[in-house]
Amino acid sequence: MDSHSNASELERQHLDTDHICELVATLLPAAEYIHSPSQSFLQTTEQEEAMAELLTTLHDLHPADMATLLESLPLEERMLVWKLATPTEDGEVLLEVSDPVRETLIDNMEQQELLAAVDDLDADELAELAPDLPKQVVYEALSSRDEEERAQIAAAMSFEDDQVGALMDFELVSIRADVSCEVVLRYLRRFERLPDHTDKIFVVDDQDVLKGVLPIRSLLVADPESEVSQVMADDVVTFRPEDDVEEAAAAFERYDLVTAPVVDNNRKLIGRITVDEMVDVIREESEADMLNMAGLREEEDLFAPIIDSVKNRWIWLAVNLCTAFLASRVIGMFEHSIEKIVALATLMPIVAGIGGNSGNQTITMIVRAMTSGQISNSQARRLLRKEQGVALVNGLIWGSVMGLLSYFLYHNLGIGLVMVAAMTLNLLLAATVGVLIPVLMQKSGRDPALGSSVLITAVTDSGGFFIFLGLATLFLL
Amino acid sequence: MDSHSNASELERQHLDTDHICELVATLLPAAEYIHSPSQSFLQTTEQEEAMAELLTTLHDLHPADMATLLESLPLEERMLVWKLATPTEDGEVLLEVSDPVRETLIDNMEQQELLAAVDDLDADELAELAPDLPKQVVYEALSSRDEEERAQIAAAMSFEDDQVGALMDFELVSIRADVSCEVVLRYLRRFERLPDHTDKIFVVDDQDVLKGVLPIRSLLVADPESEVSQVMADDVVTFRPEDDVEEAAAAFERYDLVTAPVVDNNRKLIGRITVDEMVDVIREESEADMLNMAGLREEEDLFAPIIDSVKNRWIWLAVNLCTAFLASRVIGMFEHSIEKIVALATLMPIVAGIGGNSGNQTITMIVRAMTSGQISNSQARRLLRKEQGVALVNGLIWGSVMGLLSYFLYHNLGIGLVMVAAMTLNLLLAATVGVLIPVLMQKSGRDPALGSSVLITAVTDSGGFFIFLGLATLFLL
Repeated sequence: MDSHSNASELERQHLDTDHICELVATLLPAAEYIHSPSQSFLQTTEQEEAMAELLTTLHDLHPADMATLLESLPLEERMLVWKLATPTEDGEVLLEVSDPVRETLIDNMEQQELLAAVDDLDADELAELAPDLPKQVVYEALSSRDEEERAQIAAAMSFEDDQVGALMDFELVSIRADVSCEVVLRYLRRFERLPDHTDKIFVVDDQDVLKGVLPIRSLLVADPESEVSQVMADDVVTFRPEDDVEEAAAAFERYDLVTAPVVDNNRKLIGRITVDEMVDVIREESEADMLNMAGLREEEDLFAPIIDSVKNRWIWLAVNLCTAFLASRVIGMFEHSIEKIVALATLMPIVAGIGGNSGNQTITMIVRAMTSGQISNSQARRLLRKEQGVALVNGLIWGSVMGLLSYFLYHNLGIGLVMVAAMTLNLLLAATVGVLIPVLMQKSGRDPALGSSVLITAVTDSGGFFIFLGLATLFLL
Repeated sequence: MDSHSNASELERQHLDTDHICELVATLLPAAEYIHSPSQSFLQTTEQEEAMAELLTTLHDLHPADMATLLESLPLEERMLVWKLATPTEDGEVLLEVSDPVRETLIDNMEQQELLAAVDDLDADELAELAPDLPKQVVYEALSSRDEEERAQIAAAMSFEDDQVGALMDFELVSIRADVSCEVVLRYLRRFERLPDHTDKIFVVDDQDVLKGVLPIRSLLVADPESEVSQVMADDVVTFRPEDDVEEAAAAFERYDLVTAPVVDNNRKLIGRITVDEMVDVIREESEADMLNMAGLREEEDLFAPIIDSVKNRWIWLAVNLCTAFLASRVIGMFEHSIEKIVALATLMPIVAGIGGNSGNQTITMIVRAMTSGQISNSQARRLLRKEQGVALVNGLIWGSVMGLLSYFLYHNLGIGLVMVAAMTLNLLLAATVGVLIPVLMQKSGRDPALGSSVLITAVTDSGGFFIFLGLATLFLL
């Protein structure tokens, strides 16, 4: 971002976390004397200067940048910055931070502060925060809203996090089909501001049933005399509140949407979803795949207490230990062979390792293709054959390289040949299981990414040891 | 998507790849007699029916869906469908498919077909396709454009794929600050259509220098008499053509942008970028991280010939083999100890395995945090301490579990104690290296995700073997 150093008023702020950390470090010893942006009792000029600079910096931060900053700070520092953040934007920041960080922030706020923070939020935003807020705060926040808003909040809260209904937005503009564009323009002018991202106006009948959409782009170039029904588009991508958000995000991506209507089973318009929410879904979805493959249960606060991190990661570590123990017992079956040819113990991790690496390549590719909807059942068999072909080629090439090396190391032709055969077979096993695991996971309705890396490694480890030591026992003893 | 089965004209099409595959399979034997949507010579009624249904289905497909369909089909089927695709949308489809699939499609097109396909594309789109097209086609396509467009194409092609300039769009609406909103509305009405995603109009002076933006939302609610300068926003997020696209995408995500201006060093407006491109960047970035961690060089055509897949994956397999060989030599150093206590060979993969699993959890979390810009230098040391804390806890817990198991298996207290110590030390090593690898990669300007999974496994394997066998040799022999 250095190209932006000659910043004018038009330039965006750049978040300089390192510098903010330095300022916070200066203030940390006085943390207990700092209560709010306007109330702080500092002893040294250095601290006062740091405070002045920090307040200016924080004041200019966009809520999204403030969220990133808070996520990247250790707990103590995070709480100090949070105390100094612009209170009017607290609600927006709470919406932007990740779940575990949000918890740490809410835990450190007084009831009154929380109420003030959520006061400016829209119905859908309050619904998003509600599960993390103390019950009393939710109750009081709801009582200050009108009946329509309370109904909207209740509706939004009735959906799961991964349903469109949980992300939909109730602020929208709708019109009738039988008015002229001129009338629409006059109607819009009566608004103080239009909802964010308004790129289209929803056309409904007197029962609020969706008839089409009037893109603003069309409205602006249309003859003011013409009727909305002539200008509107009726081939609209619509969503139901119970639709899966990942599918909705994929539709936004494909059809380049900015907003889209959400309708109920009778096609009655009940809300809309916007591209900014979908961008977050896409980001979170890909990240979740990455975390899941590595065996992390969920997004972690980078600076979570050690015990929380241990809890987040223990399941897959335990699974890994079980599978490693299994692999160890497979080796145990061949202790007798290893006693006779100790070189087997030296070479066996190579066979297991290449299988794990190659299997991870296959499984990653398949999981990625599944996310973008490229794999249907009829393709799975074909992919399997192709991956096995790749494995066979790789096995023969790399197996021969390793076979030769082993031959030169141990001056034993048998060991070399067993190496070639074992590596090829383990790569074939890795390819087969690398395709089957995600396909079966998906068929049984599970997330194909979930722990897939741990599982494939388990198979290629135990399988690799068994194949290599088994072949060696058969042919070399 | 079953909730959409009662589809009306307003409903989106759902891509049923399986059914299309069946239709294509029916037609495949007659593939050589099928030349285009209108020219086909079929023998059986079954084939004729399949053809009729296939043509209707393909005709209704959005270019993005057609792209997904083509990506999910094996080569022969892909080519048949491509022959039958609506020729007027060929250009759009070529833009949507992944690079390796695009190559297969272009290879199978005549020069005239390619020229027809790119004829309708905008300057920036043609620039995106140009590197993949035969030189002669690019030359002829350019000669049919006017001078301004040729200059734009040349400009777009002068940037790297990962620079904003390569993705920017030249179609935009700009106005002066000293006119009234009424005049702007009248000016817009003279357009036949406004550029896609127009959510703001760019305000420039007579030198085309950007002064601000007029959001359409503000224009619609503004008093028609008021001057643009009073309504426009001047705190605009702008980009330079040489900016990194991933940073631009992150800015779009944070500030919920739909379009943003691209300016040169003199703040002259030269183009704009739109959210649909940024969504693709976000998706590709996360996917690239996943692929890179697993050691895949780039996006692969699922049905690429085996030899292409082998080429795409060989580097990391080779790296893995080298590191596995190293690990094997580490074991080789202790052959003498293994000969004496063969149980060591059985238990050593457990120590290596848990280190690899735990290290992958750490490195995945760090890479993810780096992608969202949460890690600055001053945090790295802190994170290191935290991850080491987690490792210590996990090591003592799981090490004790495994130590006990080993004790019961081999009735040897020494083996149990060595197991506890080795597992704890290897987890500490995994945590340390899991933080250091991505931090050092980033410091040296490399992609922190690149092969990180292969690297960490290499360290925890060799390290695990060395620690375990070393301790055993010291204390048990």
